[in-house]
Amino acid sequence: VILIKQTIDIILTVDKMSELILYYWPINFRGHLIYCLLDYVNISYTIVSTSDLLTLKNAAPKDCLANFMAPPLLHDTSNNLYLAQTPAIITYLARKYNLYPNPENPMKVALAEKTIHDCSDCLAGLTRNNGAEMWTKEAWDLFSTTRLVRWLQIFENTATEQGLKINEGFFLGTTSITFADLVIVATFHTMEWALGDTIGDILRTNAPKMMALTDRIVTSNEILSTKFQSYKGTVVYCGGFIEQSLRSVLAGGDGATGDVPIPTK
Amino acid sequence: VILIKQTIDIILTVDKMSELILYYWPINFRGHLIYCLLDYVNISYTIVSTSDLLTLKNAAPKDCLANFMAPPLLHDTSNNLYLAQTPAIITYLARKYNLYPNPENPMKVALAEKTIHDCSDCLAGLTRNNGAEMWTKEAWDLFSTTRLVRWLQIFENTATEQGLKINEGFFLGTTSITFADLVIVATFHTMEWALGDTIGDILRTNAPKMMALTDRIVTSNEILSTKFQSYKGTVVYCGGFIEQSLRSVLAGGDGATGDVPIPTK
Repeated sequence: VILIKQTIDIILTVDKMSELILYYWPINFRGHLIYCLLDYVNISYTIVSTSDLLTLKNAAPKDCLANFMAPPLLHDTSNNLYLAQTPAIITYLARKYNLYPNPENPMKVALAEKTIHDCSDCLAGLTRNNGAEMWTKEAWDLFSTTRLVRWLQIFENTATEQGLKINEGFFLGTTSITFADLVIVATFHTMEWALGDTIGDILRTNAPKMMALTDRIVTSNEILSTKFQSYKGTVVYCGGFIEQSLRSVLAGGDGATGDVPIPTK
Repeated sequence: VILIKQTIDIILTVDKMSELILYYWPINFRGHLIYCLLDYVNISYTIVSTSDLLTLKNAAPKDCLANFMAPPLLHDTSNNLYLAQTPAIITYLARKYNLYPNPENPMKVALAEKTIHDCSDCLAGLTRNNGAEMWTKEAWDLFSTTRLVRWLQIFENTATEQGLKINEGFFLGTTSITFADLVIVATFHTMEWALGDTIGDILRTNAPKMMALTDRIVTSNEILSTKFQSYKGTVVYCGGFIEQSLRSVLAGGDGATGDVPIPTK
């Protein structure tokens, strides 16, 4: 049991099993960016229950060391750091586990950090800002043939300019893997894994080198390859009505919720 | 004149006047996060015309080294880096101009980076995701008394826990200024400066130490103090219909566009 602040009564039920504790909804989506990084470096982490997450999320900021608005939230118990905001969590962990590009190349460092934000924008676009609006067939047809394609061209061109080849290399042409590679896996390999071949075809047509890179990374890593083998095509993505709407348009429907059941795993 | 790629015909009209060239809309908003950082360290930069920005933004990614979706976009001509995404631009410039917290304190580094994302979320909240929806009186009353207040408490508590005092210190309790302080100035001092005392009162009531910090930083820096003196209360904020809607609810209106004129400076 972890006591968040001794002077008040927020008590979570999580046992301290790992050095790293993650608070996130029971979906993949943004949390996967953190999970894939930790899985790749084989660091164990504990994901707390949704009720513990809600306890912390609904606490007044002054009563809660977490100081956060929304998950994902990382608690690194080794230095008692509570850290929200996916990009900040990723760069923190990348420093901790030596996944940054060489600091002597500030351009690659900058492009690696940009990659997180580009991926985050893609996730927001795919879910119409986390479900602020539902998909219609018209909106999906437009997005999937224009803005999504431009995003994929941006990723593919960046990688090509930095030195990625179809059969070898890393996203930013680095000599070893960086967090940018793992963010790309977590965003695009997950997207195809959870949502299936309709979106996978769009990804592979417009960003073939990037998708081949994700295949190589997943295949070469035992934890990631096991993770992405399980549940293929039957895995929850972003959850909520927007996942139902997204799965509807991907299946050729009109985006109405309730058309397509959401996986429960 | 800068030739973007020699093999194709995208030619911009900007003269190379500064090492740093910025592409952004003629508003303050997110661009201010970059301008305030550069102003503080007294580094000159050139802001290109909107037509040059549009030329680059509308180019196919493969024809354009910029590889970006939306401004702000930085071109650092010293190493020919084109870099989009506000948080990535800020951390790149913070490394370049020594505005990072001491790397021996990874917690402060992480919280400084989190600060950028928290500020960015506040800007998105204040503009209903960059104008995706207009304000109504009801929506504003709810936001300004709940979510906005929670954001301000998050900032104020973080700063207090890290060591900020009402009359001295920096946002994360560092011994010298960091990019987190300048992002706070750019977000909240700008908000009050451009939008006036209705929002200023909310900021100062809920985050008094943070706002006192912004006052100290602006007062102590000649370029920032000159910048924030000019045009006070008559300066464009985020532009577009959403600025009209925001100014309407701030003036007690119902959020209808056209109620309140937007400043042109």
